[in-house]
Amino acid sequence: MNALNTPHPAVTVIGLGQMGSALATALLERGHPTTVWNRSAHKAEPLVARGARLAATPEEALAASSLIIACVLDYEALHTVLDPLTDSLAGKVLVNLTSGSPEQAHEATAWARSHGADYLDGAIMTTPPGVGRPEMMFLYSGSDAVFEAHRPTLATLGDPLYLGTDPGLASLYDSALLGLMWATMTGWLHGTALVGAEQTPATTFTPLAIRWLTAVAGFLTTYAPQVDAGDYPGDDATVDVQIAAIDHLIHAAAARGIDNALPELLKATMERAKAAGHGQASYAGVIEVLRGA
Amino acid sequence: MNALNTPHPAVTVIGLGQMGSALATALLERGHPTTVWNRSAHKAEPLVARGARLAATPEEALAASSLIIACVLDYEALHTVLDPLTDSLAGKVLVNLTSGSPEQAHEATAWARSHGADYLDGAIMTTPPGVGRPEMMFLYSGSDAVFEAHRPTLATLGDPLYLGTDPGLASLYDSALLGLMWATMTGWLHGTALVGAEQTPATTFTPLAIRWLTAVAGFLTTYAPQVDAGDYPGDDATVDVQIAAIDHLIHAAAARGIDNALPELLKATMERAKAAGHGQASYAGVIEVLRGA
Repeated sequence: MNALNTPHPAVTVIGLGQMGSALATALLERGHPTTVWNRSAHKAEPLVARGARLAATPEEALAASSLIIACVLDYEALHTVLDPLTDSLAGKVLVNLTSGSPEQAHEATAWARSHGADYLDGAIMTTPPGVGRPEMMFLYSGSDAVFEAHRPTLATLGDPLYLGTDPGLASLYDSALLGLMWATMTGWLHGTALVGAEQTPATTFTPLAIRWLTAVAGFLTTYAPQVDAGDYPGDDATVDVQIAAIDHLIHAAAARGIDNALPELLKATMERAKAAGHGQASYAGVIEVLRGA
Repeated sequence: MNALNTPHPAVTVIGLGQMGSALATALLERGHPTTVWNRSAHKAEPLVARGARLAATPEEALAASSLIIACVLDYEALHTVLDPLTDSLAGKVLVNLTSGSPEQAHEATAWARSHGADYLDGAIMTTPPGVGRPEMMFLYSGSDAVFEAHRPTLATLGDPLYLGTDPGLASLYDSALLGLMWATMTGWLHGTALVGAEQTPATTFTPLAIRWLTAVAGFLTTYAPQVDAGDYPGDDATVDVQIAAIDHLIHAAAARGIDNALPELLKATMERAKAAGHGQASYAGVIEVLRGA
């Protein structure tokens, strides 16, 4: 991006926790005139030192820019700040990066529209240190016109991905991806504890674990069309084979005093898939016992 | 690799399930004279068509090569085949790719040595279609001399990684990595079911999930030295923050009738970490409640 050719619209960032501060920092670094506001003003100090303008009140913050990015603790905190100011929302564009549910995103869309504001819901798929890196995903859903109009500014924060007009999609994907993260990180910690019991450092095991995740990603690519087709040919490995193999993990971990709640649950889930007739299916068949009826 | 300059030692493959057949195929494709044996001889037919020699008996299979690769259902099956033939084992190199526990690998090492055979334990970190691809990990542990002597042949099957002289390490890593895989695949299926409830196909969600796993791998790289140090600074995201966020997942999934056993367990595990004083730690601190006392 050529800074000389690129307009840098003014942006207001509401909420200066770790994430909000990272957002404001990324905007400042790319040259956006950035106004910030936080309930505790002292959190703005490092940003003011980098050139941010500190709004004395939420009113001032809203007035400073037409694009408002909010990243606060939760939707309740968002409404606490903005509900007294709904008269000032008309004509503004609110990009809400506050974590919440799809239902909250739907409600916020209706609420913003009723006050004459455009609204885009978003989810940040990185930690604060990752903000501003172009490989990090930022998910957006809601008005496609708002997304397209502000895409260059949103690209300052990370790679902006538009999921669709349903404003709940960003939150839904966010939860789905975080669930994958927690499962993966807990599986990694369990494995790390297991090899750690035999004096293998986490820093020795983890590069192999990461390389293995690349292979696992290949399995997911194989299994995704199976899920969409509802047909799970077990020609690479069957649920029955996985059930036999997970016993080795459970025994090895138990022998080393490691908590087995996660592998026991995974085994029970596989057993349910087998009981439902998917023993000869690929692992993708396990989705049949996770889905709603 | 230049076939003209590379010796291609004779190899015997015992066990022709999907995986054993894939191993023999890879060896044949690289020009190794390959003898195969299986309890049910008909499984050898496609391999014989590709140039494999079918041994009529296990004795013949052992006699045909000094390098014996075994890949059977379990250690019991291995002993059923080899126990009557221990007189023929002297001077042979047995590379055992049968799935098992670290304890079984230790026992097999002692058993092979007592009969004058060299022994290397191994674990295959791919599915049968991945065998022969140089990016796929094959883990080995036990005699480093055996590993080094046969590394070129083992490289025919995948990327051979040597973990150490403790013969149990390959099985231990295998279990640890498979545990990571099952956790990751189940987390992916749960997320796929969640977005699927809003008509997002698995093939739409999965590329984002895979890209997200790259970010998650970055978190693991950050957290591994924290685990080794026993110090988990929550400067990117704390366990407390994750506990708040997982409620969004649980509610969104429950509203769509999706089984929540996995996220409920993950939340309970985080709550245990918090109760143990790690609420302000990074997610790496969760290992403190997984490890043995």
